[in-house]
Amino acid sequence: MTEAARTALLAKLAEQIERPDESARTAARERQLMLTKPTGALGRLEELSVWLAGVQGRSPTRTLEQVRVVVFAGDHGVAGAGVSAYPAAVTAQMVRNVVSGGAAVNALARLAGATVRIVDLAVDADLSDLRSGSAELVVAHKVRRGSGRIDTEDALTRAEAEQAFRSGLALADAEIDSGADLLVPADLGIGNTTPAAALIGALTRNDASLVTGRGTGIDDATWMRKCAVVRDAMRRARPVLGDQLLLLATIGGADFAAMTGFLLQASARRTPVVLDGVMSAASALVAQRVAFRAVDWWVAGHLSSEPAHALALHRLSLKPLLDLDLRLGEGSGALLAVPLLKAAAATMAEMATFDEAGVSDRD
Amino acid sequence: MTEAARTALLAKLAEQIERPDESARTAARERQLMLTKPTGALGRLEELSVWLAGVQGRSPTRTLEQVRVVVFAGDHGVAGAGVSAYPAAVTAQMVRNVVSGGAAVNALARLAGATVRIVDLAVDADLSDLRSGSAELVVAHKVRRGSGRIDTEDALTRAEAEQAFRSGLALADAEIDSGADLLVPADLGIGNTTPAAALIGALTRNDASLVTGRGTGIDDATWMRKCAVVRDAMRRARPVLGDQLLLLATIGGADFAAMTGFLLQASARRTPVVLDGVMSAASALVAQRVAFRAVDWWVAGHLSSEPAHALALHRLSLKPLLDLDLRLGEGSGALLAVPLLKAAAATMAEMATFDEAGVSDRD
Repeated sequence: MTEAARTALLAKLAEQIERPDESARTAARERQLMLTKPTGALGRLEELSVWLAGVQGRSPTRTLEQVRVVVFAGDHGVAGAGVSAYPAAVTAQMVRNVVSGGAAVNALARLAGATVRIVDLAVDADLSDLRSGSAELVVAHKVRRGSGRIDTEDALTRAEAEQAFRSGLALADAEIDSGADLLVPADLGIGNTTPAAALIGALTRNDASLVTGRGTGIDDATWMRKCAVVRDAMRRARPVLGDQLLLLATIGGADFAAMTGFLLQASARRTPVVLDGVMSAASALVAQRVAFRAVDWWVAGHLSSEPAHALALHRLSLKPLLDLDLRLGEGSGALLAVPLLKAAAATMAEMATFDEAGVSDRD
Repeated sequence: MTEAARTALLAKLAEQIERPDESARTAARERQLMLTKPTGALGRLEELSVWLAGVQGRSPTRTLEQVRVVVFAGDHGVAGAGVSAYPAAVTAQMVRNVVSGGAAVNALARLAGATVRIVDLAVDADLSDLRSGSAELVVAHKVRRGSGRIDTEDALTRAEAEQAFRSGLALADAEIDSGADLLVPADLGIGNTTPAAALIGALTRNDASLVTGRGTGIDDATWMRKCAVVRDAMRRARPVLGDQLLLLATIGGADFAAMTGFLLQASARRTPVVLDGVMSAASALVAQRVAFRAVDWWVAGHLSSEPAHALALHRLSLKPLLDLDLRLGEGSGALLAVPLLKAAAATMAEMATFDEAGVSDRD
């Protein structure tokens, strides 16, 4: 794919992305003033209801009944550089755990009434024998076994980056075509906070030491190694910062490229998204470079303890709903925020107005 | 009731309050280390699961199926001093709204799977003709019509304070005897942030200007009047700071006295509580003075935008789960935190261990 073809693909997507419905947002703001509570007393829940009205194109909002988690699973060559507290084999083991229903994402999705699909983009194992169980496993989008080691080599070829990106578009289409009303992109992969940190460092122009975190819980010596890997990756990214598919090929990975496509297609298809942790924030930053309006269709579920996460959310102008020191990924923080979205929809739709209830408004 | 009798009543309650189960807490901490996630990666959710294990006396924790909201409704004479943006008649109108299911507490309780009971402690209207509807109305505990204007007179007589306090004990017993596994004490009453601010100012030794907030959304001139009322009330409280029932009689109200009793009885009966906003925090501070161990049985659902709330939570050593700029009361912030408690219970109970899932632990 030539640079011109890449540019055309992204420009076409960006063109399809519109603003949320401004008249529904206005109607939601007006309705909030009529509900039986002091003006503004539901705080961020009221802001959320206005956002929901805009992305749903209606006020009052309707409840969220088809929440879909898509887990983007992939290995990363940097795990070989000793940047994680866990062995790389854990990625494939955890995919099996998700499929059989024993991971955090399964418990949290059950509570939130969400379905879970897990997609093998670049797991360094052959999972084609594994049958879908509690979660649906998708292996048709596998790009390769493990993305490249980004401190010394590209994560993906250009063709692989495009393939993974297009898989993300297709995955969003599949969920939306089958009725999704809220999407939760999630991540799974040992080592994935390293490309996340590198992408966020490169796109927010912050030093490697400011974006490198403790990931799964590494010690000081490992953190210093990880910092050096992030610094080297950021250096390798400098020539390609203006070309988002090349950037994903250079220091991202198949899971990042797919999630970036997924996020953009969700916005193009007018479908709301709850972002999770630092991996989805990194993909969101890349997507924002492709289409700044895409961000209007997303909310930030939580703030994780990864330092790059706060920097990315700041650049996205998204304020996280929760701050619970999570650092798990798997969509956990986003799923915990789903009840807040449901509460925003329910209060707006079900509360009586001052007139209906015969309650006096302010003096 | 003499001072000696009051002291004996409270001392007996304090004696009944034990620590949560330390062996269940230890078992919960150990189980968290075995679950398929990086150590500590679920952050505050793990802390919550340890708390739940302690108050439930078991690990793994069991899910929360009987969540009960009790709304303590009462009017306050200070509303006559012009400290609120809404007329005092709104309290009774809002009780009717809750009973018919149109208030925020109803929508949020439905989502959280919680029942709602609303108790008229001192509403300045006769509600005895009103039938229970979506929420159960309790009028049997009514102490008087409106608590006194605390800047110039006592909120309650000593007998009334004791009566309301004992009502709180009985209300907790009723919920616990019928199977409650989580209690949400909620408030409803125009003017109630004024006694809340006065109680918190008096017990944390902060100036009236630091504890007085905007309540339902008052302007600067009203805020200055409210400040003066809080300051005068705090001055009136000085001689009785060591006698908690007298303090509640002097600058509290029937709703505050009842909620204080309710909180203490919940702790005595080993039943967990989610605190809501500034009114429950003020009652919790008074209860803490009666029995410092009572606090172990409570979590703080959220931080509201009332300034006294943060000061009270700091004194209680409770860290709020949510921070959403709410200032509604009605248990709204506590109900929004219930899904986090359910998530803490679900992840701990349902996630596979490393051994069960065949996932490698850290190197």
